[in-house]
Amino acid sequence: MGIYNAYYNYPELEDKCFNTMWIYETPERGNISIIAHSGTVASHAFWFCKNIGVKIGKSLSTGNEENIDMIDFLDYLKDDPETDVIGLYIEEIKRGKEFIDIVKKITPTKPIVAIYAGGTEAASRSIMGHTGAIAGDDKIFETVFNETGIISTDSITEFFYYLRTFSQNIIPNGSRLGIITDSGGCGAMMAKAAEKLGLIVPEFSEELKGKLKQYIPPVANIDNPLDLTFQFNQYNLYVKIPKAMINSGEIDGIIIYAVFGFEEVLNVIKTSGGETYEEFEISNDMMKGLYLKPSQRLVKKKMVPIFYIGPQGYSNPWIREFINSNIPIFDLWDMPVKCFSVLAKYSEYRRKLNPNFKK
Amino acid sequence: MGIYNAYYNYPELEDKCFNTMWIYETPERGNISIIAHSGTVASHAFWFCKNIGVKIGKSLSTGNEENIDMIDFLDYLKDDPETDVIGLYIEEIKRGKEFIDIVKKITPTKPIVAIYAGGTEAASRSIMGHTGAIAGDDKIFETVFNETGIISTDSITEFFYYLRTFSQNIIPNGSRLGIITDSGGCGAMMAKAAEKLGLIVPEFSEELKGKLKQYIPPVANIDNPLDLTFQFNQYNLYVKIPKAMINSGEIDGIIIYAVFGFEEVLNVIKTSGGETYEEFEISNDMMKGLYLKPSQRLVKKKMVPIFYIGPQGYSNPWIREFINSNIPIFDLWDMPVKCFSVLAKYSEYRRKLNPNFKK
Repeated sequence: MGIYNAYYNYPELEDKCFNTMWIYETPERGNISIIAHSGTVASHAFWFCKNIGVKIGKSLSTGNEENIDMIDFLDYLKDDPETDVIGLYIEEIKRGKEFIDIVKKITPTKPIVAIYAGGTEAASRSIMGHTGAIAGDDKIFETVFNETGIISTDSITEFFYYLRTFSQNIIPNGSRLGIITDSGGCGAMMAKAAEKLGLIVPEFSEELKGKLKQYIPPVANIDNPLDLTFQFNQYNLYVKIPKAMINSGEIDGIIIYAVFGFEEVLNVIKTSGGETYEEFEISNDMMKGLYLKPSQRLVKKKMVPIFYIGPQGYSNPWIREFINSNIPIFDLWDMPVKCFSVLAKYSEYRRKLNPNFKK
Repeated sequence: MGIYNAYYNYPELEDKCFNTMWIYETPERGNISIIAHSGTVASHAFWFCKNIGVKIGKSLSTGNEENIDMIDFLDYLKDDPETDVIGLYIEEIKRGKEFIDIVKKITPTKPIVAIYAGGTEAASRSIMGHTGAIAGDDKIFETVFNETGIISTDSITEFFYYLRTFSQNIIPNGSRLGIITDSGGCGAMMAKAAEKLGLIVPEFSEELKGKLKQYIPPVANIDNPLDLTFQFNQYNLYVKIPKAMINSGEIDGIIIYAVFGFEEVLNVIKTSGGETYEEFEISNDMMKGLYLKPSQRLVKKKMVPIFYIGPQGYSNPWIREFINSNIPIFDLWDMPVKCFSVLAKYSEYRRKLNPNFKK
């Protein structure tokens, strides 16, 4: 292994590389490929991607496209077995019809997330100076994206979170969201964000409520969002409650707020005289086996994604376990709602094309 | 100093505390105060705030407000010399008229950032279960926020970034944004985001272009966004170029993409045979004295905020220097544009009330 930059190496030559960055890094490779009219999109976002666990396999910067363009590379990635998800940063599409044709062939099996940077005055001026491209109207691109099933955003943060979301290969069957929370405030904010994005946060049936009742403390309210209050039955939080929700067939995705790592803080709690619970006396490794393995089996079997929120942040060892295992985790509660909404949107596109998809 | 949680201690009793969290932490205290209908908003966001440098001085969770409410606390914070900025998390306002009266007295001197969580079906259901409040229509709150100069958002991420932004006490005089970048792609994305938010990304005058010409490499384009390409004259980037822009009077705020710390990577670059520049041979401490001090003097003198983007991320030692010095820095390029837009909006409100403000 020499020096390499994962964004620019050839998977065929695992021990070879060429490094376009001036910093030595060896990020983990994944199933996301990027084609961009700006090299910076992939190269400078390197640290952010490493932090949140966006694992990129191939990155292609097409520059001013004098001889080869985005469509040529889309054609290559279409059949590339190492690419499951494609990210596009677009300043101009020169061959419009060909672009539509090729993405229509890709999106039924591989999700595409795109940023189109043109469409406003200073942005188009900037693009002209950058790649010499003549950027077109935002509305045209919006229509093309919608009709071809491309997920689009203007935000680079969303771009990478959406790519990470699709890289899980868990496409839900609808747009009904179950929210599990230990805080009424966060639950309300997530419910509002979800409904504003067109998602459904359904009330649970009496049957499901009856099942959930055995797992939650008596002071808690059985509703969706399900506010567990600050109770510490971790097995219920990670396994029993999501399982009851998923098996009911009443929801298509779940957000769990919040998960905490105890291993690294247990001594501090004890030393400082804080109250501990028996369940705190558990290593991250044991938590992984007891809590994450069974719930991830269920996620994959039923294709119902679970998004976790870990407020201790991305540098926390327990949170890193999620990232290392490709389990979607977030530090705050805005982004998981948005990520589920793009999954639901993409799922709707797939089901419209093929009504038998996931029946 | 015993155990304390900065969100809940009394500034009058510097060595006393009461800790509502189960984890020992001693965050730095600042000039931001929060009043919330949910304790979690401040307590669980603790790690995120520490990471990006949101320094909270007082946090008041008012619960179901049986005996004392948000308005009582607003009345207290209005004259609190330790509070410069106020954050509100709202589930219901019981005394509407009094709320409007008190915030109208506060916003001319202290910015308020608010989240209103109600207004959709599941959110209102959730609020009813949480504090028993009857949440009202989103539109009513939107109107109240607009008319009283409150900056509102549905996003918890934006909430904290906006509070951090206002805590600098640098209120610009208008909405004209100058963008300095080393990447055409990022420049175009920022320009588009700015224009969509109603900001102006003006073309520079010939006079200013003439001045800027001496600081940029010949391949670069003199425009706004100003794409420096990947050149390494750090003194121009941090000091000369912003100074020329600010002194021209043609812009009201600046975003600089990107700043890098070299101290911690220099050896790696050398060892791996990468190209280094003379300017890399500089410690973070020297960079602080040479680059940040003069530019921050200018920011404060002219009240033109500079936002920095450091893609190496919040854990990088050079990026921590910014956070420790209360200089606004971001890991990606979405949020600085949004932060400048709320500064511009708040500035407009202040100038409407008092046309002589900052003349």
